[in-house]
Amino acid sequence: MPDHVIGIDLGGTKIRAGIATLFGELLAEKRTDTSNDGSDVIEQIRSLALDLCDTIGIPLDRVVATAVGGAGVPDKTGTTFDLAPNLSALGDIPFTEQLSAVLGHLVVIENDVNVSAVGELVAGLGRGHSDFVFISVGTGIGMGIVANGSLLRGAKGAAGEIGFLPFGGDPLDPANHVRGPLEEVTAGDAVSGRFLSSSGSALSPEEIFALAASGDQQAVKAVDEEARWLAAGIVAVNAVLAPEFVVLGGGIGTRADLLPRITSWLNYLGQPDLTIRVSELGHLAPVIGALTIAIEAAAAAQKGISR
Amino acid sequence: MPDHVIGIDLGGTKIRAGIATLFGELLAEKRTDTSNDGSDVIEQIRSLALDLCDTIGIPLDRVVATAVGGAGVPDKTGTTFDLAPNLSALGDIPFTEQLSAVLGHLVVIENDVNVSAVGELVAGLGRGHSDFVFISVGTGIGMGIVANGSLLRGAKGAAGEIGFLPFGGDPLDPANHVRGPLEEVTAGDAVSGRFLSSSGSALSPEEIFALAASGDQQAVKAVDEEARWLAAGIVAVNAVLAPEFVVLGGGIGTRADLLPRITSWLNYLGQPDLTIRVSELGHLAPVIGALTIAIEAAAAAQKGISR
Repeated sequence: MPDHVIGIDLGGTKIRAGIATLFGELLAEKRTDTSNDGSDVIEQIRSLALDLCDTIGIPLDRVVATAVGGAGVPDKTGTTFDLAPNLSALGDIPFTEQLSAVLGHLVVIENDVNVSAVGELVAGLGRGHSDFVFISVGTGIGMGIVANGSLLRGAKGAAGEIGFLPFGGDPLDPANHVRGPLEEVTAGDAVSGRFLSSSGSALSPEEIFALAASGDQQAVKAVDEEARWLAAGIVAVNAVLAPEFVVLGGGIGTRADLLPRITSWLNYLGQPDLTIRVSELGHLAPVIGALTIAIEAAAAAQKGISR
Repeated sequence: MPDHVIGIDLGGTKIRAGIATLFGELLAEKRTDTSNDGSDVIEQIRSLALDLCDTIGIPLDRVVATAVGGAGVPDKTGTTFDLAPNLSALGDIPFTEQLSAVLGHLVVIENDVNVSAVGELVAGLGRGHSDFVFISVGTGIGMGIVANGSLLRGAKGAAGEIGFLPFGGDPLDPANHVRGPLEEVTAGDAVSGRFLSSSGSALSPEEIFALAASGDQQAVKAVDEEARWLAAGIVAVNAVLAPEFVVLGGGIGTRADLLPRITSWLNYLGQPDLTIRVSELGHLAPVIGALTIAIEAAAAAQKGISR
């Protein structure tokens, strides 16, 4: 009897996978590097699924559903992603159909940041709360919304695309209409770009945050500017949604040295009372979220009672 | 047997009231001018309620609940409004308690823009839709959100306070932290202020819109600047919520000559595909919304079955 689910976090550099019972008991995790252009992703997920089943000693047909969280917004049929550029080879295939064919069970997909928000709701800072947002800041910026206790996807599944908030970059400049004005000044490459233009050195965001922690003034400025725009983004989100609190995630969002600077800018922006927390789930959040969504999908697909 | 509800739109200049059956059949409407400082509002609502009952030939004890939509956010106990300045005399009284005492039945209160959004949902452009927003622009700016088919209030009932979006006015200037940076440039007095500073004439927003329609260039500029900031606000709301469409309401928001200018600015902002509609319900929207909320409150208060 199929009584397990698989959750997949399909990232641009790593694919993470977990297997759980229908009661939400996480039994094993695996991960692998994402193939160069994403062309092998279907096969890679199949290998991870078989590996997970081997590890816990069940055949693949004991899995009832797999949920995949990935960059971009699932299209309205829910079958393909508007994928991140580094997975472009996957762009035109009917993703859920192909993956479902090789796995032999139900496959559902969801935006990766939404998946992380669900992870926070069931196993992180969102436990017991009905209205919060999860903002991921890394190579890009995005937000998952939990409102009235459930995921808010918006009319086209595009809720939370806060990179398109009309400030940061000039919102009237068409160059800022591709990733969005706020993403242009908050994505990882923006941190590097600011530091490059002030110091002449090309460093990664991680290196710049490390330099800032050691007191380098150009690095501090690049990080503080990041905090300024994230604070403005949070103020905008609060004006629209008034969540109980904001959870920060992602490679940049979880930098401990960022939060006090964001708090300081929130003060300048007249919003000293907003509650901002840093995710503690780390890489597990999207896998746990995907498992939760897989369990929900399995329950929704179960029609009636058979005996 | 109590089988009717009353809905009240408590405005700064007018109080509008309607009475309906529990099945939502609107039977009569009344209105009156709001007393100067709001000190007589409780008595005015009581008079309207008695007048409505007289009109349809029932005693007041046939009314099971009254819902009141008013400016500001109900406090967390839901018993008092953070009221508009011109109703300041009401600020410190336990509003629902006093009104309930004089009416002899359940009283609930809700933010006036939320009430209008519910009006659109049940009787206006929102019929049959689950994800839209109602943006009211007049003496101030505010938004009611319908998401997943119901009103989204946020954690403290403060969702939709889009006057606090951090652009328009300088978001770092404490002077813009009282009404909010976007309200500072979109409220009715901002239209008048822009026209005054360019032309030297102090006119009302209505007069400026009329002048703009006749081709006056200073008036056109004042109106176009209004459209620019409303378009930016709509882009921000879309980035967060991705609603199916936006309904514009309020004394300024419903100006027919505003919509084409907003559409033009949405184009410059890289969002030509957003759907913006102008409310057709007019003054009836908040009364219908309040009646709906009163019916819901009556149903929620009904415990079990008596026989």
